[in-house]
Amino acid sequence: MANLFFVPQYIITGENAIQLSMPHIRAFGKRALIVTDDTMVKFGNVKKLTDELEKYDILYRIYSGINSEPTHTMIDEGVRIFQQGGFDFLIGIGGGSPLDSMKAIGAVVSNGGSITQYKGKVIEKDLPPTVAIPTTAGTGSEATKVSIITNTDTGVKMLLSDPKLMAKIAVIDPVFTLTVPPAITAATGVDALTHAVEAYTSLKAFPMADMFALSAVKKIFKNIYEVYTNGTNVEARREMAIAAMEGGIAFSNASVTIVHGMSRPIGALFHVPHGLSNAMLLEVCLRFLKPGATDRLCDLAKAIGVYSEGMSEEEGADAFVNAIIELLHKLDIQTLQEFGVKKEEFIKQIPKMASDALDSGSPGNTRRTPSNAQIQELYQELWDSGEKK
Amino acid sequence: MANLFFVPQYIITGENAIQLSMPHIRAFGKRALIVTDDTMVKFGNVKKLTDELEKYDILYRIYSGINSEPTHTMIDEGVRIFQQGGFDFLIGIGGGSPLDSMKAIGAVVSNGGSITQYKGKVIEKDLPPTVAIPTTAGTGSEATKVSIITNTDTGVKMLLSDPKLMAKIAVIDPVFTLTVPPAITAATGVDALTHAVEAYTSLKAFPMADMFALSAVKKIFKNIYEVYTNGTNVEARREMAIAAMEGGIAFSNASVTIVHGMSRPIGALFHVPHGLSNAMLLEVCLRFLKPGATDRLCDLAKAIGVYSEGMSEEEGADAFVNAIIELLHKLDIQTLQEFGVKKEEFIKQIPKMASDALDSGSPGNTRRTPSNAQIQELYQELWDSGEKK
Ligand SMILES: NC(=O)c1ccc[n+]([C@@H]2O[C@H](COP(=O)([O-])OP(=O)(O)OC[C@H]3O[C@@H](n4cnc5c(N)ncnc54)[C@H](O)[C@@H]3O)[C@@H](O)[C@H]2O)c1
Ligand SMILES: NC(=O)c1ccc[n+]([C@@H]2O[C@H](COP(=O)([O-])OP(=O)(O)OC[C@H]3O[C@@H](n4cnc5c(N)ncnc54)[C@H](O)[C@@H]3O)[C@@H](O)[C@H]2O)c1
Ligand SMILES: [Fe+2]
Ligand SMILES: [Fe+2]
Repeated sequence: MANLFFVPQYIITGENAIQLSMPHIRAFGKRALIVTDDTMVKFGNVKKLTDELEKYDILYRIYSGINSEPTHTMIDEGVRIFQQGGFDFLIGIGGGSPLDSMKAIGAVVSNGGSITQYKGKVIEKDLPPTVAIPTTAGTGSEATKVSIITNTDTGVKMLLSDPKLMAKIAVIDPVFTLTVPPAITAATGVDALTHAVEAYTSLKAFPMADMFALSAVKKIFKNIYEVYTNGTNVEARREMAIAAMEGGIAFSNASVTIVHGMSRPIGALFHVPHGLSNAMLLEVCLRFLKPGATDRLCDLAKAIGVYSEGMSEEEGADAFVNAIIELLHKLDIQTLQEFGVKKEEFIKQIPKMASDALDSGSPGNTRRTPSNAQIQELYQELWDSGEKK
Repeated sequence: MANLFFVPQYIITGENAIQLSMPHIRAFGKRALIVTDDTMVKFGNVKKLTDELEKYDILYRIYSGINSEPTHTMIDEGVRIFQQGGFDFLIGIGGGSPLDSMKAIGAVVSNGGSITQYKGKVIEKDLPPTVAIPTTAGTGSEATKVSIITNTDTGVKMLLSDPKLMAKIAVIDPVFTLTVPPAITAATGVDALTHAVEAYTSLKAFPMADMFALSAVKKIFKNIYEVYTNGTNVEARREMAIAAMEGGIAFSNASVTIVHGMSRPIGALFHVPHGLSNAMLLEVCLRFLKPGATDRLCDLAKAIGVYSEGMSEEEGADAFVNAIIELLHKLDIQTLQEFGVKKEEFIKQIPKMASDALDSGSPGNTRRTPSNAQIQELYQELWDSGEKK
C-alpha cells in the first residue's frame, strides 16, 4: 500500500524564525491580511510580526475578531474583509483558533459559497498563500491540512480536511508561547499529546508519520509539566512548540481517531476548550481502544521509558495508559462537572454527540471500531468518572 | 537560531505509489517531458509510468539521453527538447542522474542562460512542476534541493543547491529498485548512508534533520547487506528506498560535509560513480572529522546498536567508525586502484581536487574544518590505503 506524506512547504523553527521566513513571505506579495485575536494584539505578538512586515514594505490589515474558538460568522466577516481589501496572502498568528480561521477564510475566498457548506468538502481551488504562526503549543494547525469551524446554527464543530488547507509556511518561534497561562498550557499540551497518540494508534498510521508521533510523545512527556509549572523556561517551551508541530504532522498524515471524534461535539455544545475536552476524554478512550492497539501502546511505553524488561505487551500498554492518567492528574485537568456542565443537559445530548462524532469520520480510524451505542456508553462513562472525583 | 526545513510538497511511498500520485500529477497539466536513461526504458520502468499517464490522458515525450552521470551537454539537449515541445511539467525517472538532470533542465527552462553558469547560483524563477521517481536507493535526489552536473569543459562536478530545485512530488515505489545489480546496490546504498552520517555530523544539523538522519542510518545498517546479497527481497528494498529518501531530506536541510566535498572531484576527473567514490572516502574522512564530532558519532553508534553500556563517548565513536569499515568490507567496495585509476594521474590532480572540493562549500560544514593542505593529505591517504589492500 502507498502512503501520502505532506507538510508545509517551509517549516521554520527556533528563535527569530520570523526573520528567517521573511524573504519567503515577501515572495507572496505586498498586501497581507493578518488573522488573529485581541489577546495577540494586546500581548504584542502581532507587533513583532508587523515590525518585520514593515521592514519588507508589506502592507497589512489586522482582523482580530477570532476571540473564541472559531464560528462560521467570524469566517464570514474575514472573507468580507479579504475581498474588500484586495489582499495577496494571509497570515494567521495565534492559537489554533486564528490559524484555523485563516485557512477557512482562504478556502472560501478562493472557492466561494459559505463556510457552512464546507464540512467534509473537497476543496477545488488553491487558497491564497498562507503563513501560520502558532502562539500555543497545541493544535499543530500550522502543519495540518485541517481546520475546525463551529456552525453555531447547527451546533456542529465541522471538520474541514483537505491538502489545500495546509499552510505554505509554518513559523514556529517558541518565544510566542512564553505568555500562555498555566491552564491553557496544560490543555493545549495535552491536545498535542493526543494528536500524537491518536496518530500512532490510528489505522492509517505509517512509518513517516510514526516517526513524528514518537518524537512528539517523547518531548511532551519530558517537558509538559515543566512548562505548566515554569512557563518561562524557554528551552522547555521550544521543545513543546516543536512537539506540537510534530504532533500536527503526525495526525495530518495518519488521522486522529476516537478522542478527537468525541471531543468536538463536547466543544460545540458545551464550549469546553478543545484541549481540555480531549484531556477529559483521554483515559476512557484509551481504555476502550487498548484491546485493538496493545502493540502500539506498548511502543509508546518504550518511547517514554515506562516499559521495563520482561513486561508483556499488555503490561506495556497498561504502563503507558497509567503514565497518561498520572500526567493528567499532575496537570489538574478539570472534569466536566468542575467545568460547570449540567448533568441533565449532558445526558440529553449524548445521542446527538455520538452521531456527530461518528459522522466526522475520525472514530472510524480507531484500531477498535466503536459503534454508536459504544460511543454513547463512553460519554456516559466520562460523566460518571467525573462524579467520582 | 532558527532553522529552515523543507521537503517535496507530496512524498508518496510504498507499492503502487505511482497510482496514488496520479491525481496530483494530473493537476500539473496535459503534457509531460520524461527525463530518463535507456536502461530505464529497457527495464520497463518507463512503461509502468507511461501506462499511468495514458490512463489520465497526459501526453508525453521520453528523453532518455542521461546515459552516464549528467553532463552539461545532456542538459542543453533536454532544454532544447522542452522548449520545442511546449511541455507543462517534467517527470524524472531513474537513478540520481536522470533526477538531477530533470532539475537542471527545469532550472534553465525557467531562468535561461546555460547550465554551465549555474554553479552556486541563486535560482530566481520557479521551475515548471517536477515529479521525481527514483529507481536506485541512494542519492535521495527525489527529496533534495540539490542537482549535480558535470561541466565537461572545466572538469568540475558543479553543485547546484536552491530551494526551487526541490521536486514538487516524490514517488518512492520500492518495486523500481528490485532490478538494481549488486555493485550499484552497494554503492548507492553507501551514498545514502553517507548523506545521513554527514547530515548528522554537519555544523548545520538540527533536530528535524537529525530525526531523518538517524532513521536512515538505522534502516541502512539493517538492510543494506541483505539487498546486496538478495536483491529481490522487497521488504528490505522498501526499507532502503525509504532510507535513501530520509537521507536526502537530512542532508538537503543540514548539508553534506567533507566526504561529498572530496568525492565530487574524483567523480568529475576519474569517472568513478558517485556512490563508489563516497564509499572509498568514508573511512579516511570519518577518522579526520572524529575529533570534532565524537558525541555525534557516539549517538550514531547507539542508533545502530554497537554502543555498549560503560563505553566512553570516544569509544562509542570508534565503535561506529569500525562498524562502517566492516560494512564497507562486506560490500566489497573497490579501491581507486581496483577501479583502474592510475597513480601518476591521481597524484597530479590532488591540488585541483582539493581546491574544487573546498570551492563547493561542503567541507566547510564539517565539525572539524579542513584546510586545503589537510584535504590534499586526505587524498594522498586515500591513495595509500588502496595500495595496502
Ligand atoms: N487545525 C488543526 O489541525 C487543529 C487541531 C486541533 C485543534 N484545532 C482547533 O484549534 C482551536 C483551539 O486552539 P488552541 O487550543 O490553540 O486555543 P485558542 O487559539 O482558542 O487560544 C486559547 C486562548 O489562549 C490565548 N492565547 C493564545 N496564545 C497565547 C499566548 N502566547 N499568550 C497568552 N495567551 C494566548 C488565546 O487568546 C485564547 O484566549 C479549536 O477550535 C480546535 O478545534 C485545530
Ligand atoms: N541531487 C542530489 O541530492 C544528489 C545526491 C547525491 C548524488 N547525486 C548525483 O546522482 C548521480 C548518481 O545517481 P545514482 O547513484 O542513482 O546513479 P545513476 O542514476 O547514475 O545510475 C547508475 C546506473 O544504475 C542504473 N540503474 C538505475 N536504476 C536501476 C534499476 N532500477 N535497475 C537497474 N539498473 C538501474 C542506471 O541505468 C545507471 O547505469 C551522480 O551524478 C551524483 O553526483 C545527487
Ligand atoms: Fe486537537
Ligand atoms: Fe551523494
